[in-house]
Amino acid sequence: METREVLERYKKGQISLDEAESFFRKAPYEELGDYAKLDTHREIRSGFPEVIFCSGKPDEYLKNIYRKMYDTYGEVFGTRASKEQYEIIAEIIPVIEYDPVAGILKYERTDKERKGLIAVCSAGTADIPVAEEAAKTAEYFGSKVERVYDVGVSGIHRLLSRTDVIQRANCVIAVAGMEGALASVIGGLVDKPVIAVPTSVGYGASMHGLSALLTMINSCANGIAVVNIDNGYGAGYIATQINRMGVKNQEGR
Amino acid sequence: METREVLERYKKGQISLDEAESFFRKAPYEELGDYAKLDTHREIRSGFPEVIFCSGKPDEYLKNIYRKMYDTYGEVFGTRASKEQYEIIAEIIPVIEYDPVAGILKYERTDKERKGLIAVCSAGTADIPVAEEAAKTAEYFGSKVERVYDVGVSGIHRLLSRTDVIQRANCVIAVAGMEGALASVIGGLVDKPVIAVPTSVGYGASMHGLSALLTMINSCANGIAVVNIDNGYGAGYIATQINRMGVKNQEGR
Amino acid sequence: METREVLERYKKGQISLDEAESFFRKAPYEELGDYAKLDTHREIRSGFPEVIFCSGKPDEYLKNIYRKMYDTYGEVFGTRASKEQYEIIAEIIPVIEYDPVAGILKYERTDKERKGLIAVCSAGTADIPVAEEAAKTAEYFGSKVERVYDVGVSGIHRLLSRTDVIQRANCVIAVAGMEGALASVIGGLVDKPVIAVPTSVGYGASMHGLSALLTMINSCANGIAVVNIDNGYGAGYIATQINRMGVKNQEGR
Amino acid sequence: METREVLERYKKGQISLDEAESFFRKAPYEELGDYAKLDTHREIRSGFPEVIFCSGKPDEYLKNIYRKMYDTYGEVFGTRASKEQYEIIAEIIPVIEYDPVAGILKYERTDKERKGLIAVCSAGTADIPVAEEAAKTAEYFGSKVERVYDVGVSGIHRLLSRTDVIQRANCVIAVAGMEGALASVIGGLVDKPVIAVPTSVGYGASMHGLSALLTMINSCANGIAVVNIDNGYGAGYIATQINRMGVKNQEGR
Amino acid sequence: METREVLERYKKGQISLDEAESFFRKAPYEELGDYAKLDTHREIRSGFPEVIFCSGKPDEYLKNIYRKMYDTYGEVFGTRASKEQYEIIAEIIPVIEYDPVAGILKYERTDKERKGLIAVCSAGTADIPVAEEAAKTAEYFGSKVERVYDVGVSGIHRLLSRTDVIQRANCVIAVAGMEGALASVIGGLVDKPVIAVPTSVGYGASMHGLSALLTMINSCANGIAVVNIDNGYGAGYIATQINRMGVKNQEGR
Amino acid sequence: METREVLERYKKGQISLDEAESFFRKAPYEELGDYAKLDTHREIRSGFPEVIFCSGKPDEYLKNIYRKMYDTYGEVFGTRASKEQYEIIAEIIPVIEYDPVAGILKYERTDKERKGLIAVCSAGTADIPVAEEAAKTAEYFGSKVERVYDVGVSGIHRLLSRTDVIQRANCVIAVAGMEGALASVIGGLVDKPVIAVPTSVGYGASMHGLSALLTMINSCANGIAVVNIDNGYGAGYIATQINRMGVKNQEGR
Amino acid sequence: METREVLERYKKGQISLDEAESFFRKAPYEELGDYAKLDTHREIRSGFPEVIFCSGKPDEYLKNIYRKMYDTYGEVFGTRASKEQYEIIAEIIPVIEYDPVAGILKYERTDKERKGLIAVCSAGTADIPVAEEAAKTAEYFGSKVERVYDVGVSGIHRLLSRTDVIQRANCVIAVAGMEGALASVIGGLVDKPVIAVPTSVGYGASMHGLSALLTMINSCANGIAVVNIDNGYGAGYIATQINRMGVKNQEGR
Amino acid sequence: METREVLERYKKGQISLDEAESFFRKAPYEELGDYAKLDTHREIRSGFPEVIFCSGKPDEYLKNIYRKMYDTYGEVFGTRASKEQYEIIAEIIPVIEYDPVAGILKYERTDKERKGLIAVCSAGTADIPVAEEAAKTAEYFGSKVERVYDVGVSGIHRLLSRTDVIQRANCVIAVAGMEGALASVIGGLVDKPVIAVPTSVGYGASMHGLSALLTMINSCANGIAVVNIDNGYGAGYIATQINRMGVKNQEGR
Repeated sequence: METREVLERYKKGQISLDEAESFFRKAPYEELGDYAKLDTHREIRSGFPEVIFCSGKPDEYLKNIYRKMYDTYGEVFGTRASKEQYEIIAEIIPVIEYDPVAGILKYERTDKERKGLIAVCSAGTADIPVAEEAAKTAEYFGSKVERVYDVGVSGIHRLLSRTDVIQRANCVIAVAGMEGALASVIGGLVDKPVIAVPTSVGYGASMHGLSALLTMINSCANGIAVVNIDNGYGAGYIATQINRMGVKNQEGR
Repeated sequence: METREVLERYKKGQISLDEAESFFRKAPYEELGDYAKLDTHREIRSGFPEVIFCSGKPDEYLKNIYRKMYDTYGEVFGTRASKEQYEIIAEIIPVIEYDPVAGILKYERTDKERKGLIAVCSAGTADIPVAEEAAKTAEYFGSKVERVYDVGVSGIHRLLSRTDVIQRANCVIAVAGMEGALASVIGGLVDKPVIAVPTSVGYGASMHGLSALLTMINSCANGIAVVNIDNGYGAGYIATQINRMGVKNQEGR
Repeated sequence: METREVLERYKKGQISLDEAESFFRKAPYEELGDYAKLDTHREIRSGFPEVIFCSGKPDEYLKNIYRKMYDTYGEVFGTRASKEQYEIIAEIIPVIEYDPVAGILKYERTDKERKGLIAVCSAGTADIPVAEEAAKTAEYFGSKVERVYDVGVSGIHRLLSRTDVIQRANCVIAVAGMEGALASVIGGLVDKPVIAVPTSVGYGASMHGLSALLTMINSCANGIAVVNIDNGYGAGYIATQINRMGVKNQEGR
Repeated sequence: METREVLERYKKGQISLDEAESFFRKAPYEELGDYAKLDTHREIRSGFPEVIFCSGKPDEYLKNIYRKMYDTYGEVFGTRASKEQYEIIAEIIPVIEYDPVAGILKYERTDKERKGLIAVCSAGTADIPVAEEAAKTAEYFGSKVERVYDVGVSGIHRLLSRTDVIQRANCVIAVAGMEGALASVIGGLVDKPVIAVPTSVGYGASMHGLSALLTMINSCANGIAVVNIDNGYGAGYIATQINRMGVKNQEGR
Repeated sequence: METREVLERYKKGQISLDEAESFFRKAPYEELGDYAKLDTHREIRSGFPEVIFCSGKPDEYLKNIYRKMYDTYGEVFGTRASKEQYEIIAEIIPVIEYDPVAGILKYERTDKERKGLIAVCSAGTADIPVAEEAAKTAEYFGSKVERVYDVGVSGIHRLLSRTDVIQRANCVIAVAGMEGALASVIGGLVDKPVIAVPTSVGYGASMHGLSALLTMINSCANGIAVVNIDNGYGAGYIATQINRMGVKNQEGR
Repeated sequence: METREVLERYKKGQISLDEAESFFRKAPYEELGDYAKLDTHREIRSGFPEVIFCSGKPDEYLKNIYRKMYDTYGEVFGTRASKEQYEIIAEIIPVIEYDPVAGILKYERTDKERKGLIAVCSAGTADIPVAEEAAKTAEYFGSKVERVYDVGVSGIHRLLSRTDVIQRANCVIAVAGMEGALASVIGGLVDKPVIAVPTSVGYGASMHGLSALLTMINSCANGIAVVNIDNGYGAGYIATQINRMGVKNQEGR
Repeated sequence: METREVLERYKKGQISLDEAESFFRKAPYEELGDYAKLDTHREIRSGFPEVIFCSGKPDEYLKNIYRKMYDTYGEVFGTRASKEQYEIIAEIIPVIEYDPVAGILKYERTDKERKGLIAVCSAGTADIPVAEEAAKTAEYFGSKVERVYDVGVSGIHRLLSRTDVIQRANCVIAVAGMEGALASVIGGLVDKPVIAVPTSVGYGASMHGLSALLTMINSCANGIAVVNIDNGYGAGYIATQINRMGVKNQEGR
Repeated sequence: METREVLERYKKGQISLDEAESFFRKAPYEELGDYAKLDTHREIRSGFPEVIFCSGKPDEYLKNIYRKMYDTYGEVFGTRASKEQYEIIAEIIPVIEYDPVAGILKYERTDKERKGLIAVCSAGTADIPVAEEAAKTAEYFGSKVERVYDVGVSGIHRLLSRTDVIQRANCVIAVAGMEGALASVIGGLVDKPVIAVPTSVGYGASMHGLSALLTMINSCANGIAVVNIDNGYGAGYIATQINRMGVKNQEGR
C-alpha cells in the first residue's frame, strides 16, 4: 500500500486516523526497525537464517540462543564450537550434532535439497577445519558442495587432476595457509568467481595467516576475492549467494 | 578425434605410425598448451577478452599490443594509462578514447548490450578513479552499471537514500579509502555479494590503503569479499562473473 | 602567602628563619612535589580520585592499595580485576562489588549524583566488557551514562533507531572491534565529540585490535579521537572531562 | 508539523493531497536526505561550515567549490593547499589569503568573535605546519587559540614555564612528531582533555609518524585521545567542540 | 713471550722444535681461541664475569653451569630465573639468593666495593622487574646504583624532584613501557649518556614493547641509545662500561 | 614403456585395444597422477622419502602414517614430534627413537652410507633444536653432517677457529636467532652455498624470528639463501640436494 | 711454506731471523689480510670476479672501479646501472655494453664457455628485469641459462608446458612479484634446488615485494630458499655455485 | 648562594628586599627557564654547542640561525645540508665549508684540540655518509676519531685486521645498513661501549633501515646500544659523552 493509496483510503474513511497515523508515524529509523524484522523473515525465506558464532559466548547465552533458534526454525547452526559447548547444548537439544574438526555444532533438517555446486578446495590437511566450516556452512544454506582437499600447489598435478569438478562449480572456495598460492592457480583454471580463504596454518613467517592473506590479495589471477583469515563461514556465505544465482539460472533453462 | 578412434584408424592403416605417435606424443603439458589456445577462444566467446595493464609498459610494447588487440577483437581496453600513453596510442588508433580520471584507454564497440546490474559505490570523491576503473571494466565486459558515488559512512543518510538502487543490483562494488567502512554498511543492506575495494586514498595511518584493506577484511557483515588496494579492474571482473549468473537467471525466467 | 609578604614578615620577626627557609627551601621540583599533593586534593574535589589497574598487581600490593583508597575516600574503584582478586579484596572489604563482565572491582558511594549524559555505544556483544569498563568508569566519576549496545554497522538500522539518545549526549563513546567502523558512522550523526575505543575482539587480520585502531584513526568523520585498544577506562575518563563541561553549561543556563 | 497534524489538516482540506503526499512521500532515506540539507543549515548556525581539503583536487573543481563556498557563506577555508592552488583561487577571489606554512587558503570574516581557549602546543619547529593547521582551524570555527610552540619534552622546562597558559585552556592540542612524548607530559599537567596529533616529522624509525602515533595511543596519562598523523584540522575541529562546551559554561556563569 | 724471543730461545736450544712449533702452529683462529681464554681471565679481572641467561635452559645444564661458575669465581649471577630454577640451584648452592621480582638468581661476594654512580629510573611500578634486572646487573659488575622508580612522564614533577640524583650519575638507565617517553625527558635533564630500555609493559597498541622501543629510538633528545625490549641486563652492562670510565676519572682526580 | 613401443606392441597384437586405450586414455592430469606415483618411486630411489610433520596431527592419523611409512620403506622420519606422540608411536613401532631436543621421531636403517659434507652451524645453544632438525634431516637423506655449534658472531673467534670444517663442506647451513648475523659472516668465509635458517630464539624486538629472517634476507654476503623461521627440515632438504651434486662430482673424480 | 719448514730452515740458517720473524709476526688478522688477497686470486680462478653494484655510486668512483676491473680482468660486470652511468662509462670503455631492461653494464669476454644449466623462470613480463639480472649474472659467471618467462601460476599450463626444460636444470631460479606463488609450483615439479627471488612488482598490498617474499619463505614445497626482493644478482650467484657442482659431476661422468 | 645565605644576608641588609625577592620570585618554572639559560652556558663550556639540523629548514630561518651561531660561538655546525643550502650560507659566511658526502655544513675553529679516541666503523661504502656525519660530529665536539671503513662482516678479515685500532678506542660507533651485523661482531671484540647506527642503505626487505635496526637491537653481544636509522649525529654525540669520561680518566693518570 503506497503513500497516495493510504491517503486516499484514509480520506474516504476506509482506514481510520489511527491506522493512517500508524502507517506514517514510523519514524525513518523505526521504519528501518520494521524493515529489519521483515528482513529477518526474508532471510528465513531465502535460506540465510542467523548462524551462531559460539567461540567466547557465555554458556547461558549460548543455551538461550540455541534453544530459541531451534524452536523457531526447527534447525540451528553454530561455528567455532568447543567440545564443552557441545556437551552443554546436547543436554537441551539431544539431536544436536557436533563435528569436532570443523567446530560445527548444528541440527539440520534432513529434508533440505542442496542445489547448484560449490567446490571447496584446500591446500593441506591442516586446512581442512576451515574448509569444512566453509563446506558445511554452504550446505546448511542449501548449496551442494564438492570437496577437493589436499591439492596444494607444491604438487600441482593433484589439483589439475580434479580440474573437471572445479570447473563445473558455480563458485570455488580456495582454502590455504602457509604460502596461500592455491587461489591463484585455481583462478587461472576456472571462469567462475573464486573466494579465497587464508588460514592461520603455518609457522614462522606465516604470521598466523597474514602471509597467506597477502598472497591471496595480491593474486594476479582474475576473478578472485578474499575473506578474513580462517573465515570459512564467510566464504560459505558469499559462495552460496553466488551459487544461488547459478542455480536459478540453471533452473531457468 | 578421440583416443579410441585414433587407435582404430591407426590399426586399419588409415593413419601412419608417425601420425598416431604425434597424436599421443603430446606431453600432457603440450596438450595443456593446446588447451590454453582453446581457452583464449572461450574467453573471447564468454566476453572476457584480455585487458592491458598499461602502467610501466614500454611504449613499443604498448603500441604492439594495442594494435594487435584492436585488429583482433575490434575493440581494446587498457587500465592505468597515462596521458602520454594516450597520445602514443592515439597516433596509431585515432578512435581511441581516454578517461583521465579512471586512467582507462580504450576503444569499445558501440553495439554491445549491457545486461544485469552492478552497483558501484564509492565513499569519497577521491575514490572515484578506482570506482570508475571498476565501473568501466564491468561495462566493457557487458555489465550494466549504476554509479552511487560520494556515499561515505560519515554521512550515512547519503548511502541510505540510495538503498533501492543498491538492493536491485546482482552485485555491489564498494570502493573506499581512509577507514574503509563503506563495505560493512552496504553488506548489511543487501543480500547480494559485495566486492570491497580498498583504495590508497588517505594520509598518515592510512598506510597507502592498508588500513582500509584491514577494515574490509575484518568486516562483520556477511557476503563481503575483498580485492587488492586500488584494484578496480579486479572488482569489475569478478562482479561481472557474478552479474552474468544473475543475468542468465533473469533471462531464464 | 606570597614571596614579598614572607620576606617582610620574616624581617619583622613574625616568622622565624627556619619558617622562612622552609618556605623558600622548596626546590622548584619539591614545590612541584607539594603541588602533586595539592593536586591529589584537587582531584578528589573534582571527582577524579585515583583508579586501580588491578591486572598483574601482586596480591599484597593490591590489598594495601584497596584498603588505603577505601579508608581515605570511602570508595574505591579498580579495573581489569580477576575473580581471584575479587575474592582477595572481599576478605578485607566485604562490601566490595565485582562485575565479572567488565572486570570492575569497586565500592561506590550510593549518594553520588550522576550528571550530564554520555552515550556508550558498542558494536557487538563481545565488545561489551570494554564498553562496560568505559560506562562504569564514567559513572564512578559522576557522569550519567546511556548504554547503546549491539549497534554494529553491518545492521545500520539498529544504530539509527537510537539516534535520539546519541544526539542528546555531551559526548559519545564508540566501542568496536573487528572492522571498527562504528565511530565513523556515529561521528556523522552527532555534533558532539566522539571518543573511539578499538577492541581486541576479532580474529585473523584483526590483529588483536590493531585493525580497528587503524580504522578509527583514519575516520573521515569530524569530531573523533581515539584511545588505546580495549582502553575503556581511558575513554570513560576523557568523556567525563568533556561531559562536565556540558554539565556546567547546562547547569549555568 | 507532526504526522497527526498533517493528517488532520489534510482531511479538513487545509492542505492538498499533493501537499500531504509530499510530506509523507519522503521515504525514510529521502527524509534523511532532507535532514542532511537541514543539517547543513545547522552546521552553518553552529559554526562548523564545510572545510575544503585542497590536496589533490583538480583545479576546476577547486575553483567551483571555493567560489560556491565564498558566495554562500561570505567566507571560505581550505587546508593542505599548495602555492599553485593559491594562485588559481586568487584569480577568482582576490581577497583570499594564503599561509604557506600551514597550507591554509582562506578568506575569513573579520567580525567573528573568538571565544573560550584552546592551547595548541607543538614539540619542535618542524611540527608548526600541523600545529598551525589545528590553530587556524579552531580559530575559523570561533575558538580563541593560544600557541605554545617549541616545547618538546627533551627540554622539559620550556613546557613547564608555560603551564599556566596550558592549564587555563578548555582543551589542549598536543602536536608532536619523532617520539611524540609531548602529549603524555601535558596530560599530567592539566585536567582538561588533551587531543594528541602525531606528525610525520622525523626520519628513520619514525616511519612517517607511525611511531609518534603509537606513543600517543599508549600514553599512560589520563584524558588523552588521538587523531590521525598530521591531522591538524581534525584536532582543531574536536577541540572546538569541547571548547564550545566550556564557553557556554563560562558564559552561563 | 713474544715472537722474537721465542725464535731466539729456540735457536739457542732453550726450547725444542716441538715447543717452538706449538707456539707458532697456532693457526690464526686457534690463537684467537687462546685469546678467548685469556680474554676470560681479563674479563674476570675487569669485573665482567659471564652471566647466565636462565630462561629456557634445561635443568641439568643450568646446574652444571651454576656449579662451575660458583666454583671458579666464588660468585655466580643469573637472569630470567624462575622460582623452579631457584629451587633446583638452591639444592646444590644453598647460599644462592633469589629475587622473584627481577628474576635474578645469584650469589654475590660481599666484599665487593661498588663505585661511581648509575641512576636507574623507571616509569611505572610494572617496569620495576626490568629496572631491577638492570640495577642488580650493574651492582654485580661493581657499579653503585641509585634507584629512581615510578617517575613516569604523566606526572613529570615526580621525575623533576629527583633531578639532582639523576644529574650526579655517570650514566642513567631509563626503563619504560607503554609510551616510553621517560628517556627523552631524562635526556634533556642530564649531560651524561642515557641508556633507554623499553619494556613489554602495556596492552593493545603497545605491541609487547615495540611502541616504547620506537619512541625511544626516535627520541629528539641528545645522548640517548637504546637496548632491546626488557633487556635490563644489557643496559646494566653497557652502563657499567660507561660508569667505569667515570669512576677512573674521578679516582684519577 | 614408451609411446612408440605401445603402439607397435598394440599393432602386433601383444596388447589389446583396451590395454592400449587405457595407456593413452589417461587424461593429461591423470597421467600427472600416475607421474606422481612414479615420482614417489623416484623419490625413494633418490633418497627423499616422505617425511612426517607431526605437530598438530591427530593421534590416529599419526599412527596410520607412521605404520604405513615404516612398513613400506623400512624406516620412517618425523619432525616436530612431542613426547606424547613418541609414546603413542612407540607402542606400535617399538624400535622408534625420539630426540627430545630436535623433536625428531624416527627409525632409520643403520646400513645407510652418509656421503659428502654439510656443515650445520648454529649461533647459540638455544638454536640447537633447529640446527639438530636440519642436521638429522640431512643425515636421514644420506648426507654426512658436521656440527659446528655455539659459534655466534659476538665471539667471532669461535667461528673462525672452525673455518676449515666449514670450508670443506659442499653446503653450509647457518642457524641463528636474535640478530641472525651468522649467515653473513659464514657467507664471507666459504665459496659454497649457505642456507640460512632464522630461528624464533630471542625476545622483545626479535619478534619470534622475524628480525633474524630480515637480517638474513638482507645479507650483503654472496651465496646465501634463506628458508622459513625454525625450518630446519627445509634447510636439511635443500642442503642435501646441493650436497648430492658435490658428492657425485667427488665420486666422478 | 709451513710452520715446521720455516723453523727448520731458520735453524739451518737458510732464512734469517728477520725473515722468520716476518713469517710469524703476522698477527692473526694480518694473516687474514694476506688470506684475503689470496682469496681474490682464488675468486678470479674460480670464476667469481667482483661485480659492481652501480646504483648510487658517484661518477668518479664508478669510472675508477670500471677502469680498474676492466684493466685487471679484461672484463667487467655491473648491476643496477642507469643510462646515464652507461654513457659515462662508454666514454672510457667504448666496448662496454648496456642492457636497459636488466640494468646490466658490462664487457664480457667472448671466449668463455657456459656450462651446466640454470633455468630462470619469471611470472610476469614486469618481472623480466630482475630475471635478466639473474640470468646475465649467472652467464657472466659461466653458467648456461635457459629463460622460461611469463609462466605465472594464474595460467599454470604455460609453466607446465616447459617442465622438461625446468627439470633438466641443475638449479632453478623462480622470479615473481605480486603473489609470488611461482616458486612453490616449481618446487613441486623439480628435484633440484629452487632459488626464489621475490620482486617489487605489484601495487597495493604487495608492499613493494614484501608479500611475495613472505609467500616464498612460507612455501610448503621442498627444496626452496629465498633471496632478497629484486636480488637477481644474488640468485644468479648462488645458482651458479650450485650449477658448478652439477657441472663437475656431469663432466666427471 | 644558597637559600639560607640569602635570607641571612638579606636580614643583615647586605642585599635589598628587591634583590632577595628577585632571588626567590622565580616561579619554579621560571627558575627552570633560568636554568635553561645557564645550561646553555654550560653547554658552551662543556663543548656541546647547539647543532643545526638543516634538512627542511626554510632559507631565511637557516640564514638567521647560521649567522647567530657563527657570531656567538665563532663556529657553527649543521647536518643534513644540501648543496643549495651551502650556497645560501656561503653568501653570508664565506669561510663556511661543505662536505657533500656527509651533508655537513660547518665552520670549525682550527685551534681545537681533539682528545681521547672514538673508532667509527662502517660496513660498506654506501654507509660512509652516515659514518662521516658521526665522525665529524664527534670531532666538532672535541673527540679524536679514527675511521675504520668498509669492514662489513661478509669479509670479516677486513674488520679483524683493524682490531687494534678498535680496541684502543674509548667508544666504538658501528655504522651499517642492509643486515647490520657489524655491531655484534665489534661488540665481541672490544670491552668498551659500542654505539650502533643502522643506516637506510639497502633495498627490498631492508625496509629503509628497519631491518638493520632490528638486527642491532637484537644483538646478542654485550655493550651495544642503538640510535635511530641514519642518526650519525646522535651517535657522535653520545660517543663523545663517553669518550670524555675516558679522556678525563686518561688525563687523570
